[in-house]
Amino acid sequence: MHLLAAAAPGGDVGAIFLALAAALAAAKLLGELAERIGQPAVLGELIAGLLLGPSMLDLVNPHDPAIHVIAEIGVVILLFQIGLEIDLRKMLGVGGAALTVACVGVAVPFVLGDVVSRVVGLAPLPALVTGAALTATSVGITARVFSDLGRLHDPESQVVLGAAVIDDVIGLIILGVVGGLVGGAELTAGSVLGKTAVAFGFVVGAVVVGRLIVPPLFDVIARVGRASTIGPMALGLMFVTAVLAQVIGLAPIVGAFTAGLVLAPTRHAESCRDGVTRLGHFFVPIFFVVVGAAVDVRTFADGHVLAVGGLITAAAIVGKLFSGYAAFWFPGRKFVVGVGMIPRGEVGLIFAQMGLTAKVLDAGLYAALTLMVMVTTFVTPPALKLLLGPGRAGGDAGGSAELVTEA
Amino acid sequence: MHLLAAAAPGGDVGAIFLALAAALAAAKLLGELAERIGQPAVLGELIAGLLLGPSMLDLVNPHDPAIHVIAEIGVVILLFQIGLEIDLRKMLGVGGAALTVACVGVAVPFVLGDVVSRVVGLAPLPALVTGAALTATSVGITARVFSDLGRLHDPESQVVLGAAVIDDVIGLIILGVVGGLVGGAELTAGSVLGKTAVAFGFVVGAVVVGRLIVPPLFDVIARVGRASTIGPMALGLMFVTAVLAQVIGLAPIVGAFTAGLVLAPTRHAESCRDGVTRLGHFFVPIFFVVVGAAVDVRTFADGHVLAVGGLITAAAIVGKLFSGYAAFWFPGRKFVVGVGMIPRGEVGLIFAQMGLTAKVLDAGLYAALTLMVMVTTFVTPPALKLLLGPGRAGGDAGGSAELVTEA
Repeated sequence: MHLLAAAAPGGDVGAIFLALAAALAAAKLLGELAERIGQPAVLGELIAGLLLGPSMLDLVNPHDPAIHVIAEIGVVILLFQIGLEIDLRKMLGVGGAALTVACVGVAVPFVLGDVVSRVVGLAPLPALVTGAALTATSVGITARVFSDLGRLHDPESQVVLGAAVIDDVIGLIILGVVGGLVGGAELTAGSVLGKTAVAFGFVVGAVVVGRLIVPPLFDVIARVGRASTIGPMALGLMFVTAVLAQVIGLAPIVGAFTAGLVLAPTRHAESCRDGVTRLGHFFVPIFFVVVGAAVDVRTFADGHVLAVGGLITAAAIVGKLFSGYAAFWFPGRKFVVGVGMIPRGEVGLIFAQMGLTAKVLDAGLYAALTLMVMVTTFVTPPALKLLLGPGRAGGDAGGSAELVTEA
Repeated sequence: MHLLAAAAPGGDVGAIFLALAAALAAAKLLGELAERIGQPAVLGELIAGLLLGPSMLDLVNPHDPAIHVIAEIGVVILLFQIGLEIDLRKMLGVGGAALTVACVGVAVPFVLGDVVSRVVGLAPLPALVTGAALTATSVGITARVFSDLGRLHDPESQVVLGAAVIDDVIGLIILGVVGGLVGGAELTAGSVLGKTAVAFGFVVGAVVVGRLIVPPLFDVIARVGRASTIGPMALGLMFVTAVLAQVIGLAPIVGAFTAGLVLAPTRHAESCRDGVTRLGHFFVPIFFVVVGAAVDVRTFADGHVLAVGGLITAAAIVGKLFSGYAAFWFPGRKFVVGVGMIPRGEVGLIFAQMGLTAKVLDAGLYAALTLMVMVTTFVTPPALKLLLGPGRAGGDAGGSAELVTEA
């Protein structure tokens, strides 16, 4: 097949291979550079995308169908990995403080973002997408920062991590709802409730049914097959639930996340993690590079974009800081909790990407949202370092952090 | 981006995810089933492709651009892995017997295949491609079979493995030459010599230059970066050399193989292997499934295809058996050496695929060549078992085997 390409040198497989080589090398290089200066690796990967994208070096075309699918596989694997890290029971045990911080931390930025957007003159739907993009804290970035500072087991960290995880689930449901609306569904209370019911119903239903069916199924696979059988089967399950979610109108990542939740408590979770970690190292950075490549850097030169981006970023930061004080009975440092909630990552970028692809957001608003993700991601590590003092040598191990930032 | 797909359920990302899920699960299932009945896993993966392809279940479309690129990545990774396993110095140490068996084992099947093809009425170019498809022994399958039988360190195994490796290199060069010819280059002695010179020149030049530049480069990367930096950088190098090979008119896999050869003797080889093994588990079976899916099973019902396939298969088997006796001074069992050389794998299938894509081979001849690969792959394990007696419990570890058959 590729020999056809060999016969016609410079065919598109060659261009894609070059794009992949550039994306992998630049993501790794800038990711590590970011970490050297105390920033999460994902920031470097985004910048790598900015540099490689059509508006600068033009090596990575985010609209190429194969690159698109590979990036899609990346984000699906990322959410599958996050699902695999989550212990639902333990999450519920962190209790009321985390839940309160999560809910307030979703609601306030959502409303603030929506209001700010309308004030600057956006239509209801773009304003809604912008608000939604402010909701979900990046659990990966947050966990990694606390881990790097050796503070993973502080009470503040526990609340932030619990809240960030709940956040992520709520964010995914909002993603499903808003995704449907962007797709052309009517913006009525009934349709939102309906979407929410379907989204909750799918996640709850898939988790309940999945936990009944999947463990015995994987027990059989493990007994009949070998250790190396579990990985591909878990990937198969991930893809199937992703398609299932898509068929009922949710984002594929919701399905992949659910597949992770289902497999997390089984005795095969470790094999599943093993099976996807290396794949994640390949696919996940490509997703972030593609996300970065979709940013048109020339829009940053636009004063309007910077102004709107600044306002949205302020709404994003104020909203999450406020959420830190929501669990008023929590004895820890509420400001630390608030700061810990600030970074937006995957989900915020996915909203921006979605809005852009569906032409609900224009390039300027997309750039403004990317700016928000970059600033909130960039600002948190030094802020937490300032609040918590110098990190302990070596930091914590940070299992759940590794999957995202090492990726 | 995928939210657009969520807005339009059943979009093509969903179809590709389903195809990937089906390919992964079926490849693993049938691969293990094949191994249970004493056959190499690759056979099961090919059969999985047959079942999932357009002529049967129609779940995997080998002509989808994204599936095509993923399969391409698979075969490039496979050849990179094979290159990484090869110790050039050790290979040269196995000496004259292996080299003789290799050369005779390439020349005789090539000539026999060409002659048989012309006898049944093929034009010069299809006959040449058919002959070329008979040349290279599958080093992965061969190594795995000896490993399974616990005979990896028998003298016969040493010769077969050495010859199969040399075979593979010669096969890759023939691939470059024939690939160029298929692409429309003139079929003259001069052009063949030129192509051969370019192919040899590229491989030798890339290995020499690579060995000068790459180890210090990777030393710097390892010193500046982390353990996890080497993997992505090795992949980047693999893609770049693949594109380089393509630019000068060779197959991308020749470049990937060369990248493996260059990295094999460095102290980073282990990190490189670590970095690609899991990726291989994902991508490589998809390649074989796609290869299988490209077979139109209905052509097997054609008596002419079966007749031509039978003749080609006979040429393939007789040619390699003959090569076993070529190293007449070798004290071991020559018939075992000959049988060990029989299985054709990756490279044979790649020739068939190339011929089909370039429309040099019709569907019937493609099916006949696939039949040849299947039969030679299928026939060897039981034949060797018969010759060597029951396997020792557990078999050998078989490092180089694992990468292909576990993949």
